Amino acid sequence: MALKLGDLAPSFVAETTQGEIDFHKYIDGSWAILFSHPNDFTPVCTTELGAVGKFMPEFEKRGVKVLALSCNDVESHKAWIKDIESFTPEAQVSYPIISDPKRDLAVQFGMLDPDEQDAAGIPLTARAVYVFGPDKKLKLSILYPATTGRNFHEVLRVIDSLQLTANHSVATPVNWNAGDKCMVVPGLSNEAAAAKFPKGFETIEVPSGKQYIRLTPQPNI
Amino acid sequence: MALKLGDLAPSFVAETTQGEIDFHKYIDGSWAILFSHPNDFTPVCTTELGAVGKFMPEFEKRGVKVLALSCNDVESHKAWIKDIESFTPEAQVSYPIISDPKRDLAVQFGMLDPDEQDAAGIPLTARAVYVFGPDKKLKLSILYPATTGRNFHEVLRVIDSLQLTANHSVATPVNWNAGDKCMVVPGLSNEAAAAKFPKGFETIEVPSGKQYIRLTPQPNI
Repeated sequence: MALKLGDLAPSFVAETTQGEIDFHKYIDGSWAILFSHPNDFTPVCTTELGAVGKFMPEFEKRGVKVLALSCNDVESHKAWIKDIESFTPEAQVSYPIISDPKRDLAVQFGMLDPDEQDAAGIPLTARAVYVFGPDKKLKLSILYPATTGRNFHEVLRVIDSLQLTANHSVATPVNWNAGDKCMVVPGLSNEAAAAKFPKGFETIEVPSGKQYIRLTPQPNI
Repeated sequence: MALKLGDLAPSFVAETTQGEIDFHKYIDGSWAILFSHPNDFTPVCTTELGAVGKFMPEFEKRGVKVLALSCNDVESHKAWIKDIESFTPEAQVSYPIISDPKRDLAVQFGMLDPDEQDAAGIPLTARAVYVFGPDKKLKLSILYPATTGRNFHEVLRVIDSLQLTANHSVATPVNWNAGDKCMVVPGLSNEAAAAKFPKGFETIEVPSGKQYIRLTPQPNI
């Protein structure tokens, strides 16, 4: 069963490449991403964990803790890290990789892909990404199959949106990128919006005559 | 409970802006995306359904059927379409929008967002995207909260990957875009790969000495 938005992150202790980690203690008070990959020593996963390694300064800048996970054992992960850092020379795999050989976490988080199996015919993890807020609740998830490498530019984009919208009364429109205009949330009156956004806001006229499309410059820059 | 990869799309008949639609008949033999939005006449949703309307030629080119869904009624959807097409003048909302006032489908597909509620305190749908293959099975999903508009460039990117990798023995690396190099899948021997990819493939040396990173030009162009 997959996690739903708003679900509290399951609490667990896991073996990782950086020793035993208690997930709730690890993410306490921070944003966090937990992402799974199908298998060590496979091509797409190598590019993905390299990209995350390369983007670590971006995750750190945003205060986001990062944890990877697959069903392989810790020794496999450690040997594979050398390949990852060789293939992506700008990458440092400074984040822990969880070992989940019995699929306890994969089942609990809904990460398994029935189409991808190990030599014994047991399902492997898909390419899941879970973003948790400082309240340890699920804010966003993506679930891609083994054939389709993720887009970590998109992961950074949504983290920017989640962090911005958690603290300001705006939402981010389709295809938004950091620095683009934002939408004033519907719950805020025009008077409250005028007080809250010193740069002002623009109301777009639409055929219904309803005044719900209100654009404002990104408030935290 | 959210859908998992490989799950068969639930069968349903729903009221839409284009009359009653039987989902399985509607998508039969095609790729399909079903995506939900929180509420008609709200700012981010207006930008999203406009973007999808603008991208319809791209979805049609890829043979992808498109269906939107929210808990609002059909009359609301129809009135709102005028606003959507006014805000995004290049958009034609030529795809049906499902009305799911009792949340039957929202619950069945795991689309609800506990943080977003209507005036009666009943949860609204989040920004879910489900991509189904011609076999009606779930290939990929994303689940974003109301505050964060989706990236439909990313949706097109993953459809390109899903369709390519379904028919060729390749997978697509991190941050891949159509036209970029692909990865030869691990299950294919070097001999079979040489026969299958007339443009050849390149094996990248890594510290483990394992020869699993094999790049090849995108095979279907």
